[in-house]
Amino acid sequence: MLIRVFVSVIILAGVSAASADPLPSWNETDAKERIIEFVTGVTDVGSDTYVTPADRVAVFDNDGTLWAEQPFYFQALYAFDRIARMGDAEPSILTSDTLKAAAAGDMQGALAQGEEGLLEIVTVSHSGLSVDAFQEDVRDWLERARHPTTDMPYDEMVYQPMLELLSYLRDQDFKTFIVSGGGVHFMRAFAEEAYNIPPEHVIGSQLESSYQVLEGVPTVVKEPGIAFIDDKAGKPVGIDAKIGKRPIFVGGNSDGDFAMLEWSTAGDGPRFGLIVHHTDADREFAYDRDGPVGKLAQGLDEGPDRGWLIVDMKEDWSQIWP
Amino acid sequence: MLIRVFVSVIILAGVSAASADPLPSWNETDAKERIIEFVTGVTDVGSDTYVTPADRVAVFDNDGTLWAEQPFYFQALYAFDRIARMGDAEPSILTSDTLKAAAAGDMQGALAQGEEGLLEIVTVSHSGLSVDAFQEDVRDWLERARHPTTDMPYDEMVYQPMLELLSYLRDQDFKTFIVSGGGVHFMRAFAEEAYNIPPEHVIGSQLESSYQVLEGVPTVVKEPGIAFIDDKAGKPVGIDAKIGKRPIFVGGNSDGDFAMLEWSTAGDGPRFGLIVHHTDADREFAYDRDGPVGKLAQGLDEGPDRGWLIVDMKEDWSQIWP
Repeated sequence: MLIRVFVSVIILAGVSAASADPLPSWNETDAKERIIEFVTGVTDVGSDTYVTPADRVAVFDNDGTLWAEQPFYFQALYAFDRIARMGDAEPSILTSDTLKAAAAGDMQGALAQGEEGLLEIVTVSHSGLSVDAFQEDVRDWLERARHPTTDMPYDEMVYQPMLELLSYLRDQDFKTFIVSGGGVHFMRAFAEEAYNIPPEHVIGSQLESSYQVLEGVPTVVKEPGIAFIDDKAGKPVGIDAKIGKRPIFVGGNSDGDFAMLEWSTAGDGPRFGLIVHHTDADREFAYDRDGPVGKLAQGLDEGPDRGWLIVDMKEDWSQIWP
Repeated sequence: MLIRVFVSVIILAGVSAASADPLPSWNETDAKERIIEFVTGVTDVGSDTYVTPADRVAVFDNDGTLWAEQPFYFQALYAFDRIARMGDAEPSILTSDTLKAAAAGDMQGALAQGEEGLLEIVTVSHSGLSVDAFQEDVRDWLERARHPTTDMPYDEMVYQPMLELLSYLRDQDFKTFIVSGGGVHFMRAFAEEAYNIPPEHVIGSQLESSYQVLEGVPTVVKEPGIAFIDDKAGKPVGIDAKIGKRPIFVGGNSDGDFAMLEWSTAGDGPRFGLIVHHTDADREFAYDRDGPVGKLAQGLDEGPDRGWLIVDMKEDWSQIWP
């Protein structure tokens, strides 16, 4: 009798797990159906689209795909904050108009020099200290900084539907990676807590590093030069270099993700490409073809014909933030 | 009755698994005892040296640590072979004495120009083709090439005791990585089959790569420039960049591994450093302070005082090859 009850409980638990909605913050639209259909197909041993767990690699861009990126990349806002603090401590480090503008929180002034100015900002704010000290500084900033319009902590501006998608994929024995133009050390400071993605699954842009024994302490130090830009054509290159397998599931939101979407979905067998389209000015932001951040044109124009899912944030997501 | 038999079988299986020797090719010496004591300590929840599975990161050099490296790095022997084939097909590519010597299998001549010559050999033999085509070529070579003195296939010259150590660590929820001066694409061509280490756990030196759509096919292509040398101070830098955690178990065999041993074992909490000392001229090779390959001097001089285990291949291993 006891055994029979026990068996029944197991069966009921199984049924309940199978019928639970893995994506509760996704509306009952085509987008959700297509994702579930794909995942079901690659995980069902009897299916002709079955993929072994070792090859279930999923990669996601970060800015605009897993967390927000308006009014500007959060990592740049961190850089402004750090330069302001460095300038308070030692004003002589503010050697250019770009750095002075950054320290004053004047985004337009700081970005007036384009990529060159951004590089100066990143270099000054992200080098000359150990990786450990840098990541502690990022975590301190995340604790106290608030977003200029939502007043939320930045690491709470992550997309609940994407958190559910990450969990769903991992539950189905996918390995989930971040592949982002953001800095690898910056993202690792919060990726494990925010997304349940461990450091070794975070791929990003990198400054040079050096190994030094400083006063007897073996230390990895962040250096000024750029080692790798993980954007556009750099994304498939970074995935090849660090994962060594072509992902079967890839998510992005801007044309910086086009090359990795193109390369990943061109592989043999079942592949899924997904683009988050920011269409919800009320609950988040609405932007695509214009503006300095998250430009999406080629992906909108060519994505549907390539079979990629364009997620309409306003229509497809019932909830934005956790 | 049936249930009782079933339960007994489970209990017996459990006892047998617990008492099975995880390192049967290691002699009953101090080395084996120290390894098992460390692993037991970090995996026993009740121990004050317990480490959570997420932090059980183990890294190993490849050449001379997991497989042999005499008379010269096997990857260089592959490069000679490939240059010979390229020269047969198109003699005009052999534009220097170094390349002519490589094509003729004249190791001394090929290495007469030192690092500069080696770089030329690697560049010519390892670039100008897709990653996929390169790895297929490496696998073809492994199929047919034989070691000059043992006449064994190169990928069978892996150390059985180290295979057991890798398995033992993984069974205890360690993640095992290769961190080697060898090329990342070269090693991935055999690492999964030889060591059960998947591509995303292989870290190595890298040439530049590019992403190109060639006749409509999205492709990652190997390019001539050196992107990263994963040797000496490059090893902690590479581990930080790709894993983002300081390993708690690290194994090497040469002074090229000194920095990663130093950095890893300087971390907080329990750490284990291991150096394979090649002492067995009869069964493998005997070398340390001299010679062009696998130089080990600082590790022998300072390792014991730093608490690192020096594995005496002749004394500590009952078997070399699988």
